[in-house]
Amino acid sequence: MVSGFSGAGKGTLMKQLVRSYDNYALSVSMTTRSPRPGEEDGREYFFVSREEFERRIEEGGLIEYASYCGNYYGTPKEYVRKQLEKGRDVILEIEIQGALKIKEQFPTALLLFVMPPSVSELKKRLEGRGTESPEVIKRRLSRAGEEADGIENYDFIVINDKLEECVEQMHGLIAAAHKTPQRNSSFIREIRQELQAFAKQ
Amino acid sequence: MVSGFSGAGKGTLMKQLVRSYDNYALSVSMTTRSPRPGEEDGREYFFVSREEFERRIEEGGLIEYASYCGNYYGTPKEYVRKQLEKGRDVILEIEIQGALKIKEQFPTALLLFVMPPSVSELKKRLEGRGTESPEVIKRRLSRAGEEADGIENYDFIVINDKLEECVEQMHGLIAAAHKTPQRNSSFIREIRQELQAFAKQ
Repeated sequence: MVSGFSGAGKGTLMKQLVRSYDNYALSVSMTTRSPRPGEEDGREYFFVSREEFERRIEEGGLIEYASYCGNYYGTPKEYVRKQLEKGRDVILEIEIQGALKIKEQFPTALLLFVMPPSVSELKKRLEGRGTESPEVIKRRLSRAGEEADGIENYDFIVINDKLEECVEQMHGLIAAAHKTPQRNSSFIREIRQELQAFAKQ
Repeated sequence: MVSGFSGAGKGTLMKQLVRSYDNYALSVSMTTRSPRPGEEDGREYFFVSREEFERRIEEGGLIEYASYCGNYYGTPKEYVRKQLEKGRDVILEIEIQGALKIKEQFPTALLLFVMPPSVSELKKRLEGRGTESPEVIKRRLSRAGEEADGIENYDFIVINDKLEECVEQMHGLIAAAHKTPQRNSSFIREIRQELQAFAKQ
């Protein structure tokens, strides 16, 4: 799960990660909002009706969901499960509250927080988009301070300075996470059983 | 801190790690036992008298120490501190109880547990040394089962299959550990303060 300040470069980073290594899949969210021009069903989002979305909620088919501006947004369980079965790590962009909810259900999920190298760099990137008014940028930077409140709950922070280096670093962090005892419990169990069997000989 | 079953290859791994990358230093233990032929003061151990060792204990100059077969063994704080000041990561071979004691004093210390790829491989390596009787090997394997009891407290497990790959992996795990929020608290604090300052503008 990847969180971080808006403008920190999460999106670009995640796309590049999936492009650079073949063991990742981007999670595709489900939404009730209408597709915008250029958006494709199953690529940007799975676009469904309100009825369909609520049916999914009832069936427990969503890992998490939230309502925003009158529309539902959520993470379909089925898609994630299929990718995991293929042996892929599923990358999910999500804000901190959603991330912590998922972590409760999936304790081996990894939490990465993308940060800019500095606040002035963050400001520069938000301005560089050219889509935001100075007012909005100021509000975003203020909100970023609050968003940073949950960082301590994250496994790793990723400082997005140079894209390529950062993608490599992210890959290294995910590889490291695969080496925790918690994520190798069956290997550890096997070694233990073998050792016990030996002791009984 | 590196722990693991005897025969898992900790020693070789650590020496190769320090040789391959220049950001590491091996911690040198202090002991009251006599140097063996070929051992050098300050390389294998710092060799000191019983009086000197007990003076260090009183002064709080040891990170941890233990008594084994009538001799003291311990980790001098001063040496570790100097290496850390030089910006190096200090590598320390230590059994699990000592490691957990150190972790209490230094919460950002990293715990790595070296494992063989399989029990049969561990047995082969212990036999390959040619110095141990079948009786001793059997006892070691039995004890390994008990040593494995603390693995859950470790940050990462390292499976020592191929030396070079394993050294690289160890380097990656240590690099990853440097990216936890806990080990970047001052960077996070700075970013937060800057953001708050911006919000007040």
